[in-house]
Amino acid sequence: MSDTADPPRHPPEARGDPPRQARAVATRTAILTAAAEEFAARSYHEASLSRILERSKVTKGALYFHFVSKESIATAVVDEMEVICRAVLERAEAQGLDPLRTAARIAREMQDALEGPVLRAGQRLCAEGHAGPDRPGWPYSFWQDVFTDVFERAVATELLVPSVDPSSFARTIVDVSAGAFAVSLAVSDLTDLAQRVCENWELLLGAAAEPAWLRAWTADGGMRAVLGPHLVPGVAEGRGWVPGV
Amino acid sequence: MSDTADPPRHPPEARGDPPRQARAVATRTAILTAAAEEFAARSYHEASLSRILERSKVTKGALYFHFVSKESIATAVVDEMEVICRAVLERAEAQGLDPLRTAARIAREMQDALEGPVLRAGQRLCAEGHAGPDRPGWPYSFWQDVFTDVFERAVATELLVPSVDPSSFARTIVDVSAGAFAVSLAVSDLTDLAQRVCENWELLLGAAAEPAWLRAWTADGGMRAVLGPHLVPGVAEGRGWVPGV
Repeated sequence: MSDTADPPRHPPEARGDPPRQARAVATRTAILTAAAEEFAARSYHEASLSRILERSKVTKGALYFHFVSKESIATAVVDEMEVICRAVLERAEAQGLDPLRTAARIAREMQDALEGPVLRAGQRLCAEGHAGPDRPGWPYSFWQDVFTDVFERAVATELLVPSVDPSSFARTIVDVSAGAFAVSLAVSDLTDLAQRVCENWELLLGAAAEPAWLRAWTADGGMRAVLGPHLVPGVAEGRGWVPGV
Repeated sequence: MSDTADPPRHPPEARGDPPRQARAVATRTAILTAAAEEFAARSYHEASLSRILERSKVTKGALYFHFVSKESIATAVVDEMEVICRAVLERAEAQGLDPLRTAARIAREMQDALEGPVLRAGQRLCAEGHAGPDRPGWPYSFWQDVFTDVFERAVATELLVPSVDPSSFARTIVDVSAGAFAVSLAVSDLTDLAQRVCENWELLLGAAAEPAWLRAWTADGGMRAVLGPHLVPGVAEGRGWVPGV
């Protein structure tokens, strides 16, 4: 097996050779894209390095220059997932919405990002216990902190009913979101995920939001309007949660 | 390596030798118990056949008489999990409670069963995508059907608010339950699972149950009373969801 086309085993940044650096970056990106597609389509256990090689069109030598094992590739995919989750949060916060609409917007941005293989692969790897040794509790602790912060702001602006504890509500949102992904993957290969997310958020916001906020939000179309293009008409029919406002 | 102590490679039922049959059953049980402990403590990927052998104190030959691979042992653990889940349902239904109290009782019986390694291992294996090829959607489709049936009975007896669709509510219960297990495993090694289950059910029943039912249930202590011994005092303090009735 020839790997003469690949750069020597040193970090690309350490060498002052721009074309080689660019090639190393392109190779690494090709491997990670192929790996994300493989880990999104198959469990970690079933995923194979040879299929990743085939998809990425790089040589075996190039792959082992960048990664030492299947596990290290999985960890790199979860690294990319972390970048995406932070960007999702940033985009949702940048909309300048009230805290509860920001929370719902995060769910929408996650659905947008799940169109790509990296977040699907990363979420699946985490659900399967492959978040990596240096990332305990990821992504659940991250989202727990995010939603606790958002819901504390919702309490401060009196958008939640007084009986709701913000960190408890955040835990339920994190549980139901993690579960929706895992269950939808198992029962529908993610086909019904957006519909599950829609029903879960309508039920939970219906339980936790102040009636005045809920009326305005429902008038704007509720979670269905937030998730819009992600809802498959055939799946949505005959389902749906109508908050009892 | 000697496996002279092990029966020949035929199903024990097919031979008329009671002592050998009893020994084969005992060996298989020892392997499955050890495997459940191993799969409960470690991911499928990290679990090792040599640790299962060590825990079970059977010979390698005996193990390979009963199982051809790690995967076939995992599938057998999920078979045992299925038996437990059906028994949980039967015990909960046998109490003769109203449909919503039956639903909450199922959650309690699951917590009881999670004290043993088989259900913990089975749930973890399913979350990690190792439910086995012959069991698509397990255990989520099973619980979806169970809770849809229970909540349809709750609708028939007017225990749910009219805006709640029983199968939609069942989906949310299944999602939040699957997520609570996965998240609790990742963030607390299941230490906070009962507390998460408590908060989730109080929030969801608070949203979906008729006010009169909810008042009576809350007067009886709510989900906290149902889960009773599973709630760790230190974890429960400062948390909790008070339904706004």
